[in-house]
Amino acid sequence: MLKSTHGPRVIPNPGGAAGLFRLDYNERIFARNYREPVLVARAAGVGAKIELARELAALDAIGIDLVARSVNDLIVEGAEPLFFLDRLRAPRLDEALCAALMRGVVEGCRLAGCALLGGETEVIGGPAAEGGLDIAGFAVGVVDLHRAMNKRRPAPGDIVLGLAGGGVHPRGFPLAREILAHAGLDPRAAYPELGEESGPAPTLGETLLTPARIYAGSVVRLDRAYRVKKVITGMAHIAGGGLAADLARCLGPNVDAVIDTGGWPEPPILSLLRRHGCVGGDDARRAFGMGIGYCIVLRPTFAEAAKARLERYGERVRVLGKITRGKGRVIEK
Amino acid sequence: MLKSTHGPRVIPNPGGAAGLFRLDYNERIFARNYREPVLVARAAGVGAKIELARELAALDAIGIDLVARSVNDLIVEGAEPLFFLDRLRAPRLDEALCAALMRGVVEGCRLAGCALLGGETEVIGGPAAEGGLDIAGFAVGVVDLHRAMNKRRPAPGDIVLGLAGGGVHPRGFPLAREILAHAGLDPRAAYPELGEESGPAPTLGETLLTPARIYAGSVVRLDRAYRVKKVITGMAHIAGGGLAADLARCLGPNVDAVIDTGGWPEPPILSLLRRHGCVGGDDARRAFGMGIGYCIVLRPTFAEAAKARLERYGERVRVLGKITRGKGRVIEK
Repeated sequence: MLKSTHGPRVIPNPGGAAGLFRLDYNERIFARNYREPVLVARAAGVGAKIELARELAALDAIGIDLVARSVNDLIVEGAEPLFFLDRLRAPRLDEALCAALMRGVVEGCRLAGCALLGGETEVIGGPAAEGGLDIAGFAVGVVDLHRAMNKRRPAPGDIVLGLAGGGVHPRGFPLAREILAHAGLDPRAAYPELGEESGPAPTLGETLLTPARIYAGSVVRLDRAYRVKKVITGMAHIAGGGLAADLARCLGPNVDAVIDTGGWPEPPILSLLRRHGCVGGDDARRAFGMGIGYCIVLRPTFAEAAKARLERYGERVRVLGKITRGKGRVIEK
Repeated sequence: MLKSTHGPRVIPNPGGAAGLFRLDYNERIFARNYREPVLVARAAGVGAKIELARELAALDAIGIDLVARSVNDLIVEGAEPLFFLDRLRAPRLDEALCAALMRGVVEGCRLAGCALLGGETEVIGGPAAEGGLDIAGFAVGVVDLHRAMNKRRPAPGDIVLGLAGGGVHPRGFPLAREILAHAGLDPRAAYPELGEESGPAPTLGETLLTPARIYAGSVVRLDRAYRVKKVITGMAHIAGGGLAADLARCLGPNVDAVIDTGGWPEPPILSLLRRHGCVGGDDARRAFGMGIGYCIVLRPTFAEAAKARLERYGERVRVLGKITRGKGRVIEK
């Protein structure tokens, strides 16, 4: 499974102690794209989401979430993902369980266009065994220094695009589990309101476990399309903090982002949890997301063309709002 | 604490989504040392060792073990460590606990000469909370393709040096815990036989939690000393598999390593566990190590000089044996 993600830059190293990835820095294409290569790295887990997946014996997609968590943060910095490593901690050696987890990780790496360079599985016996299933991931990418996003800042007039994505964020799972328990909702039961009008009704568990979307393919392609111009002025991966907190991180101190949340349709899973949990709109949006997984801020003259491009790449895109003079806040209207 | 490990190659990125590390590939020193840079990466945890550390409220050194686990594998491939990331999973937010763990990680990064580029702390509530404390680490290094160890193989006549190191390997902890429980040994009690003749007697727990040694400084310096020659023909980090299995990985199919284990003094902690646990010599050596943490195989004409160099760098070194024609086995005499 690992090998299916390996391109020519991975150096075979059977029995070796660590994974080897060549930078190809003498290749003409690398020298053209990377005059001052900067490595970009991120570690992440999937929080309590893996617990529900384990209970429902639906671990196949959790590896996609794992890759999404770190790779979507790499691309926020302008990076192209290069490789990924996983570290699995299991209470006992269970080959079927490990294989299911790895299928997701491999699929995630394929979606992100990065090599699964290695990993480690640790079996922990003893008192720590119960509740000990866990998976962590680690992604490395590369960006040229002069194109790194840390040098760019949104300016007044820039447009904020929102990319549709994923279900409940991993950090929303403790609250979602509480609501399920209190309201007596069965994750194994089918809920027609959660599905498309055609097609079978999904179970609540299936909907909660919908993997996060990986935006690497679309975002790297978009950035490459504007290689000579700095069209994108900010990006944000909407995860733990919700739209307001996560988007604010890319703003800088002198602008606000004014967002129109009213026009965005609330995902059915969010309505259901909110109704049963008596959670207010702001708290629900923060804990569960609002169906937006990624934001791109860009120069207004390119906004329509970029939106069309992203839609061609398979994204569902919406103009969320725009940048004004301000104080680094996200203002929801 | 993170910043204390940052050299000029780490690009400040406050509030950013991921860590940034520049390769300096336009610097003259990088261009001289790395004509075809290959990234080397490794993920690892510390197994059940963290459980004992938590029970004894002695989490300060476990971060050194975490860095050692992955960095010692990077240098086996000939790499120089560049940066490290950690991922902590805690049952609840406990700042003192997190700070203790991070002190060890920072100290480990300092010993390994790598930057602590970032990390993530996930707090997991709910049913997974108990026994949920865990730490995983990821290390990235760089090696020039023509000096990577995967191209080198020990030849008959080469000498095997053993570097003293560390206590019980993380993978030996489940067995060590079993022996403690069955024999009624108290990890909080002092055992004079475990200490030096001068100085106070350490507790059993302190001895078991002695952090693994990080060999990066010595091994990278040794490899640099012989930059134009290929003096080192194989290396092994002695961890989970014990000396026999771990050293065998670097041998190739046509040689054996003939090792004299008799002359090597058994570490007192190993004698104690073996005596109380009725564990045979081979099993004990595999589970607990035998006081050797790293092996270097090198051309015979350089063996004495390399041994003296390593001793100057602060290592305790012993000639363990030599390479003969064979079948890829480690033969203990």
